[in-house]
Amino acid sequence: MTTREKLTTAMADLLWERGYAATSPRDVLDRAGVGQGSMYHHFSGKHELAVETLRETVTRVTERSILLTGEGTPMERIRAYLTLPRPGVRGCRIGRMTQDPQVVEDAEMIGLVAGGFDLIIERWTAALTEATRDGELPASVDPNELAHTLVAVIQGGYVLARAHGDQAPMDAAIRGALALLDAAGAPRPEI
Amino acid sequence: MTTREKLTTAMADLLWERGYAATSPRDVLDRAGVGQGSMYHHFSGKHELAVETLRETVTRVTERSILLTGEGTPMERIRAYLTLPRPGVRGCRIGRMTQDPQVVEDAEMIGLVAGGFDLIIERWTAALTEATRDGELPASVDPNELAHTLVAVIQGGYVLARAHGDQAPMDAAIRGALALLDAAGAPRPEI
Repeated sequence: MTTREKLTTAMADLLWERGYAATSPRDVLDRAGVGQGSMYHHFSGKHELAVETLRETVTRVTERSILLTGEGTPMERIRAYLTLPRPGVRGCRIGRMTQDPQVVEDAEMIGLVAGGFDLIIERWTAALTEATRDGELPASVDPNELAHTLVAVIQGGYVLARAHGDQAPMDAAIRGALALLDAAGAPRPEI
Repeated sequence: MTTREKLTTAMADLLWERGYAATSPRDVLDRAGVGQGSMYHHFSGKHELAVETLRETVTRVTERSILLTGEGTPMERIRAYLTLPRPGVRGCRIGRMTQDPQVVEDAEMIGLVAGGFDLIIERWTAALTEATRDGELPASVDPNELAHTLVAVIQGGYVLARAHGDQAPMDAAIRGALALLDAAGAPRPEI
């Protein structure tokens, strides 16, 4: 790894474990195993390093949502994306950022987080619109609203997993969502 | 307010705004407007004050879920509870605690949070079981799993509202869940 990569990797892990406010420049240097001079050679300080790290993290985490736009029927893709492995107890690298008051007050950082969610919701909306068009979901459900619902199920699943220190409540939330999607989409003749 | 109430009210607000780790005893005393002696008269320190405060907060916040067990058809109660006003941008007083590493590592505090979610999920499960029995929801959906899904929608709704600094994405997530529940529960003859 280059020194820059050591720094962004250390910052990414610390943002995930502790958040932004609770991470000091010293924590990052110790974790990265590099000297103070290296950090200031690459970044103006903790804030710039965190912004660049968050930018890379958001890109990497949201990348997986490409599954929603790929091969298979819309409901196959939706199922595949909802059931991806997710480390519930560790929490979402992006979603957890919204609970850090310093991040929420920082236009640049919260903008990256919001932009990540926007991209995922856009892909969800496209897949759910296709599913509705193909008759896999009823027209009474707004695809963009349902996109918000399903992103929320995943984010709230992380909260439940962290509350219990256990993956199981998150998995239950996802299974419940899938069962409800299946029930809503089951063939229904005019009556 | 008694001195004790001033202290728990100040701590409750600081836990909500900043979390546990970022709140110092000095912050609490300043917010409460009481002297250090008063705090140590009532509590052994910051930790005991936070535990007692969190206990009261969990009781107060979970109280509203009694709506799920009251008057009306199960789906009327479910709708009423899902559409209660919730301050999305400020976040959930309980759910946010799960993002504070010091809270998650503290058996007493995270136990209170988990217990709060357990109570709400129990009430959700009872209401959804009734809805299934009454034919308002299909038998293919497990009521306890769906209870986890709907608690997750609310918790994830808070995450989306905080990411965007806007109530709207949370409201969209709730509306999507209601529409999906309605679609899944619509009368469906044998075909």
